[in-house]
Amino acid sequence: MINVPRGTEDILPSQSKKWQYVEKRLNDLSKRFNYEEIRTPLFESTELFQRGVGDTTDIVQKEMYTFEDRGGRSLTLRPEGTASVVRAYVQHKMFGLPQQPTKLFYFGPMFRYERPQKGRTRQFVQFGIEVLGSADPAIDAEVMAFALECYKTLGLKSLRLVVNSLGDAESRTNHRNALVDHFSPHKNELCGDCQNRLEKNPLRVLDCKKDREHPAMKTAPSIFDYLNDYSRTYFEEVKTYLEKMDIPYEEDPNLVRGLDYYNHTAFEIMSDAEGFGAITTLSGGGRYNGLVQELGGPETPGIGFALSIERLLLALEAENILLPVEDSLDVYIVALGTEAKREAVKLAFDLRKSGVKVDLDYMDKKMKAQFKTADRLQAKIVFVLGEDELKNNQISIKHMETGTQIEKSLEEAIPYVKESLRGGNADE
Amino acid sequence: MINVPRGTEDILPSQSKKWQYVEKRLNDLSKRFNYEEIRTPLFESTELFQRGVGDTTDIVQKEMYTFEDRGGRSLTLRPEGTASVVRAYVQHKMFGLPQQPTKLFYFGPMFRYERPQKGRTRQFVQFGIEVLGSADPAIDAEVMAFALECYKTLGLKSLRLVVNSLGDAESRTNHRNALVDHFSPHKNELCGDCQNRLEKNPLRVLDCKKDREHPAMKTAPSIFDYLNDYSRTYFEEVKTYLEKMDIPYEEDPNLVRGLDYYNHTAFEIMSDAEGFGAITTLSGGGRYNGLVQELGGPETPGIGFALSIERLLLALEAENILLPVEDSLDVYIVALGTEAKREAVKLAFDLRKSGVKVDLDYMDKKMKAQFKTADRLQAKIVFVLGEDELKNNQISIKHMETGTQIEKSLEEAIPYVKESLRGGNADE
Repeated sequence: MINVPRGTEDILPSQSKKWQYVEKRLNDLSKRFNYEEIRTPLFESTELFQRGVGDTTDIVQKEMYTFEDRGGRSLTLRPEGTASVVRAYVQHKMFGLPQQPTKLFYFGPMFRYERPQKGRTRQFVQFGIEVLGSADPAIDAEVMAFALECYKTLGLKSLRLVVNSLGDAESRTNHRNALVDHFSPHKNELCGDCQNRLEKNPLRVLDCKKDREHPAMKTAPSIFDYLNDYSRTYFEEVKTYLEKMDIPYEEDPNLVRGLDYYNHTAFEIMSDAEGFGAITTLSGGGRYNGLVQELGGPETPGIGFALSIERLLLALEAENILLPVEDSLDVYIVALGTEAKREAVKLAFDLRKSGVKVDLDYMDKKMKAQFKTADRLQAKIVFVLGEDELKNNQISIKHMETGTQIEKSLEEAIPYVKESLRGGNADE
Repeated sequence: MINVPRGTEDILPSQSKKWQYVEKRLNDLSKRFNYEEIRTPLFESTELFQRGVGDTTDIVQKEMYTFEDRGGRSLTLRPEGTASVVRAYVQHKMFGLPQQPTKLFYFGPMFRYERPQKGRTRQFVQFGIEVLGSADPAIDAEVMAFALECYKTLGLKSLRLVVNSLGDAESRTNHRNALVDHFSPHKNELCGDCQNRLEKNPLRVLDCKKDREHPAMKTAPSIFDYLNDYSRTYFEEVKTYLEKMDIPYEEDPNLVRGLDYYNHTAFEIMSDAEGFGAITTLSGGGRYNGLVQELGGPETPGIGFALSIERLLLALEAENILLPVEDSLDVYIVALGTEAKREAVKLAFDLRKSGVKVDLDYMDKKMKAQFKTADRLQAKIVFVLGEDELKNNQISIKHMETGTQIEKSLEEAIPYVKESLRGGNADE
């Protein structure tokens, strides 16, 4: 027997209904916020992620699925969505479109070779948005409002929005130098990764899981003290918009996010639900002015966020939220005998073509067992078609909820059922 | 600049709306036919496809994206969907579920390293269904009816259903021996692949693109003459059901499909539309009794089909069918001045939360340019919010279609808009 690869999971029908529901709601939200969908390939040139995610990140250094195709190209399964979207934005010159900013959303699997645990699989599905072309603090607030609304629209309540500003290039450089000065005396006490980070990207030392308890962490220089006027004003504006929308938030100067390209606004949404497990971050995002240029486009501001659907579903479980996943059949056709079966197949097809959800027996079952199946599938209506009925061109129609039963001719059956189901799900 | 990898494509917003529409319709159809969704990982153990697709197929021999993960496992991006679904069926013991047959559908990207051409990309998206557990000829007919309906429900007309029976194991063996006897005298005249196929899977010689014109092809023994009684009767029953449903079909004894595992019913749906290009096969499928056992499960009959969404969209283009892709905004908020902008951001958020599609300016544009944006986005209603309006707690509301304009207080604006849009898309 061959099993699913380690760190990946099948989504079986009982679960896929929840996925469909969540995806539909996120799609609806995207429309309300006026974001349009983009789909990029599941793999990209490896170079894209080296440049677009950052050479010093754990993702690029340890977690990518990289391979050569049969033409010798180095390809990588995408570990996140932003680099691909920005690549597409540059390639298709979307900065030239009349409507700016470009507001995009995406859905799809991402791949990271990590140690599998609850809420962390090697293939996981992200929903994300990216806004390219605007440096308006109001759009930062919109992105955070959208991110929160993804959870709230599904009924989640134990949520926290944590925000930070990483500042612009000047502020970052000053902060960076202060960090190097601060940590250098302790270099040998830090983990190997951090010794490396201290040279290449000292900000990420603050994000280290191993060195989190080192005393130098608590006294590390805060970005707040290094923000220049523009960055400080920008951040204040962003917070003013959040307050205007009545969105509560917390500030955390140590929130730096795992990717190299962030500046200005960075944020995470955490779950406070009990029993949610060790990983309380549901999603995160931030501003990445400079990334479009890094990937060959014109100077263009950008901001985005991404959430994992797997973690969203775990959060729903943790808050005991049952999604209204509808699951019943309109009609089950009980047929007895060869001729009746043929008629049933035709009738099912005609009903389905006119928008009705129908099934019938394909296991050569007796009448009683067919009724049992109709029950199991929660059919609203059961047709009974036997040799007798067939001879008289009649069909017996039973409404399962009320128990009422009537006879109709084969010709009348379809209009009758459509009328009975009206207001229900018979869409045409 | 980094481009999309060769043989793959981005789907930009103008296209993604069509994808969303098509996927929604296929989802609806799946419900009507009572199929449930399954999602399997994008990669699997390489062995799965070697066993489940077949060692002698072009797919396994030439077209797979195979690589090692960081743990040394040989993984392959899935080149088709059936092997994965059957793997999941076995792994999760779905044969033990009370409801049989198990009727599943899937959507998602597949990967084959082929020469890119119109209608053939290295990453393409398939929609497919699989029915496991029933050997009822009526289900073969249902699968073909479903397959056709996927196209007809979108308005396609130039379709042909081509069917064949490959028979059961006994029939196949007899036919296979006849094929070997027939082609062996010509072995040296056939292409290298076919010389190989003649030993391993002679049926696939009939499918060869290079040797298609060889005179021995025309006189090759037909499967029709080798079907035993059971296989013949089974095929006759399948065709009787098709006729009962008024589904026209053609028979073609040379239709063998590219995968090793088919038996009994095999079929393809072709497009006859002019200008559709060289590849006229839209989709195909067939019965694969034996595959479940091959992958470690109990003896279980199975049948399925898969279509490429890319080719479906090309067929729609070839028949000049425009999908009813809806695309307008409910409300655009024109705001002037800092305070008005803040109020606009809050108003937009409140409207969006109550189900209305809204946008506003994030490019610091003047009033005239904001109105132009509202036009471009086909906003049904435009709000105007300036310093004067704000002072009086008023908002000016313009209906773009009729040109009528009224004033409302900020509090009245949301209920008024929701009432105006009722019957439209304001969903709550």
